[in-house]
Amino acid sequence: MRNLTLLTDLYQLTMAYGYYKTGRDRKEAVFDLFYRRNPCGNGFAIAAGLEQVIDYIQNLRFSGEDIDYLKSLDLFDDGFLELLRDFKFTGEMYAIPEGTVVFPNEPLIRVKAPIIEGQLIETALLNIINHQTLIATKANRVCRAAEGGSVLEFGLRRAQGPDAGIYGARAAIIGGCDATSNALAGKMFNIPVQGTHAHSWVMSFPSELEAFRAYAKIFPEKCVLLVDTYDTINSGLPNAIKVGKELREKGYELLGIRLDSGDLAYLSKVARKMLDEAGLTKTKIVASGDLDEDIIRDLKIQGAQIDVWGVGTNLITSFDCPALGGVYKMCAEEEDGKLVPKIKISDNIEKITNPGYKKVVRLYKNDTGKAVGDLIMFADEELDCSKPLLMFDPIETWKKKIVTDFRAKELLVPIFENGKLVYECPSLEEIKEHCRRDLNTFWDEYKRLKNPHGYHVDLSKKLFDAKQELLNKAAEEMISE
Amino acid sequence: MRNLTLLTDLYQLTMAYGYYKTGRDRKEAVFDLFYRRNPCGNGFAIAAGLEQVIDYIQNLRFSGEDIDYLKSLDLFDDGFLELLRDFKFTGEMYAIPEGTVVFPNEPLIRVKAPIIEGQLIETALLNIINHQTLIATKANRVCRAAEGGSVLEFGLRRAQGPDAGIYGARAAIIGGCDATSNALAGKMFNIPVQGTHAHSWVMSFPSELEAFRAYAKIFPEKCVLLVDTYDTINSGLPNAIKVGKELREKGYELLGIRLDSGDLAYLSKVARKMLDEAGLTKTKIVASGDLDEDIIRDLKIQGAQIDVWGVGTNLITSFDCPALGGVYKMCAEEEDGKLVPKIKISDNIEKITNPGYKKVVRLYKNDTGKAVGDLIMFADEELDCSKPLLMFDPIETWKKKIVTDFRAKELLVPIFENGKLVYECPSLEEIKEHCRRDLNTFWDEYKRLKNPHGYHVDLSKKLFDAKQELLNKAAEEMISE
Repeated sequence: MRNLTLLTDLYQLTMAYGYYKTGRDRKEAVFDLFYRRNPCGNGFAIAAGLEQVIDYIQNLRFSGEDIDYLKSLDLFDDGFLELLRDFKFTGEMYAIPEGTVVFPNEPLIRVKAPIIEGQLIETALLNIINHQTLIATKANRVCRAAEGGSVLEFGLRRAQGPDAGIYGARAAIIGGCDATSNALAGKMFNIPVQGTHAHSWVMSFPSELEAFRAYAKIFPEKCVLLVDTYDTINSGLPNAIKVGKELREKGYELLGIRLDSGDLAYLSKVARKMLDEAGLTKTKIVASGDLDEDIIRDLKIQGAQIDVWGVGTNLITSFDCPALGGVYKMCAEEEDGKLVPKIKISDNIEKITNPGYKKVVRLYKNDTGKAVGDLIMFADEELDCSKPLLMFDPIETWKKKIVTDFRAKELLVPIFENGKLVYECPSLEEIKEHCRRDLNTFWDEYKRLKNPHGYHVDLSKKLFDAKQELLNKAAEEMISE
Repeated sequence: MRNLTLLTDLYQLTMAYGYYKTGRDRKEAVFDLFYRRNPCGNGFAIAAGLEQVIDYIQNLRFSGEDIDYLKSLDLFDDGFLELLRDFKFTGEMYAIPEGTVVFPNEPLIRVKAPIIEGQLIETALLNIINHQTLIATKANRVCRAAEGGSVLEFGLRRAQGPDAGIYGARAAIIGGCDATSNALAGKMFNIPVQGTHAHSWVMSFPSELEAFRAYAKIFPEKCVLLVDTYDTINSGLPNAIKVGKELREKGYELLGIRLDSGDLAYLSKVARKMLDEAGLTKTKIVASGDLDEDIIRDLKIQGAQIDVWGVGTNLITSFDCPALGGVYKMCAEEEDGKLVPKIKISDNIEKITNPGYKKVVRLYKNDTGKAVGDLIMFADEELDCSKPLLMFDPIETWKKKIVTDFRAKELLVPIFENGKLVYECPSLEEIKEHCRRDLNTFWDEYKRLKNPHGYHVDLSKKLFDAKQELLNKAAEEMISE
């Protein structure tokens, strides 16, 4: 396991030093990790990355080399560096499990810890969660566009460095992909791996037919032939069909052909017809080449005969929206032994944070089992499901709805207590299945690729009132200054 | 050093197996790594990532665990797995040094090796070079927009995983950034690190003034105060000025204030005026918050008084173009002991590859010292600089120009010979300086951020003719089939 303890913005360390120098480093504080806007025009996000956050926390330790490096910066005194030598996470962490459907402003992770610890882990948590949540969400969009067709993650060569390929592949599986081309991700996370051959294989033989024959001989049961090296219709497909017939004589079926260029709607229809006429009705058509959810949807509308979609660059980088803007904000701090809610004020109302030590509750209608809205509330608030609940938008407060006959589920679950891991990470397969089931609890209207219906994420009345009070207090202080 | 040997698309392994099973795995082949289009509308790219490619090649080794994993896939026989156990790179690699200005279709890396080796390294090489070249290029755009103002890389929390943050920071320095906030990148590559405090620091004190005073006391020489937690003009700036004056009484200068929200043009002008009127003329103004090269240019046009630009998300992800489409194509292969040029044909003329074992030559005018065009040619071709040279565009062949009074420089330099490293990696500081000097050899017209003038990258007459011949031959074979 890599030690990523120094994977932090320097200012976390200068602030930690500041807390130490002012004798406040062990004061307890609460931080929320949340994002403000769904990526790619999606109606939600898919939480991902928690397992790597856990690994990071469990491996938190400044090595002697790290300490020497920090000393060389000439910013910190020896007492602080000694303190870092013994640094570890001793606090509490709650998180929404991976694969869960989540929404803006909901704490995906809530940390309660001595402020020095809560602060020092900010950057790595954001880096990990922002990346994997983004890719899981993007992958889910692509899988929804494929409408049950199989989607393979093929993006390693265009990913933003090795980790983006490795953890991007992991997130893609959570979002619904069936396999990856990335052998290292396959090994690390027990993901199915797929892949056949490239143009170079074909070019390295005197002819395409010889290349196909050689490949089919080596992988008779798993033979997918790339047919566009020279000319898809006049050369690639006829040669693939010839080899498919030869395979059948030996008792095998040609598993698939792959189209990687040209007009995929047209070529796939021609390919299906040619394969079917040759009796190769079981041979699948795999398509790849700069695909994304929009292109897949358009190709399907035009009747493309594609069974398997290999998606690379656009998925692994979330090309149209390559960053999730997750933030990590202090929302409460110990004063005289008590946690006091804190707020960050901004001219932009959407950037004002929700104060206090909070929980997230999802409400489901009893009759349909479908989610009807989420409520952010103080952690110690009770919700009486037996009474009708009046929900209202925290910004456009006139948008109200009354919810009746519902049950509630808390989304944040304990991960660390007093620095000890109390959570057992599910397998990647289980996370993927959780995601699939969780999506089933949402109406299709929230799952449209374009312009989805907005899902209610409201504040409890008590939290809303407390927030207004803090805002008013801040305004009064401004006037009195 | 991490072992990334399995960081590959599975099809490299299935093809390697195919070469092995057909007895052709030791046949020599030549591969070019190049890209087809400059990112972000730029007129060129900045080559980056070679040092990590070298690390990767030197650490190539399938571990016992890797072999066990591959065995579990049930694709390969034991003979092949034994061969992988001893796998290493024994070939030749040439590359264009990091920090060099490069153009589409130029081989950034040229590999000549037994085909199994050349093929197996494809994915990792592309992953590393695509990422770092992209970020170095994007960073250079941001730095050009800042027109000599200092640019800091602040993107770790939004980077696509740890590596994207770490190697992105490295690439950002090559492209011209002065420092990073990323402490781990700072340690790994000896990059200057910068950072002060966040809003949470201010919120953790009873008042902003107390927060500023505490910070100034701890870092009197390196004090940059974030002034937008509550109200920049009415609270943040007056408090910062108060602390700046107190610092001066103790013999220090307030190093800077940071603006992270609001209208940066307006606020920076107000801040400059307020600071100057208070005599704090040396205090720098740092701006951050969703900046990119377009915003920086617009802010400068409006007279923003910003000295230092902290650029995060848009730089570290190359937000408007988050992938460089680098490819790796076989261009020659051994036949009967001789290297024979190979070509990949496509309906799209820009996707047809340049055949043969080639070099890249940059031509400079003797009088100005400026680059006038690049020539891709066979490696064994001689270029006579004493005679006028007729250059022509390889696609729009009617675009011609005659070059006289020039000198030539080969861009590809030897990195590995017979698997041995023969190159000494420059320091990151040296690479950055090489980039700066290399950019100086190009006219400003090529360096415009929008719609730059197109730089000539042509083929030698001999290479052009050889390519046409291969294309004609392929067409004839298609007809005769």
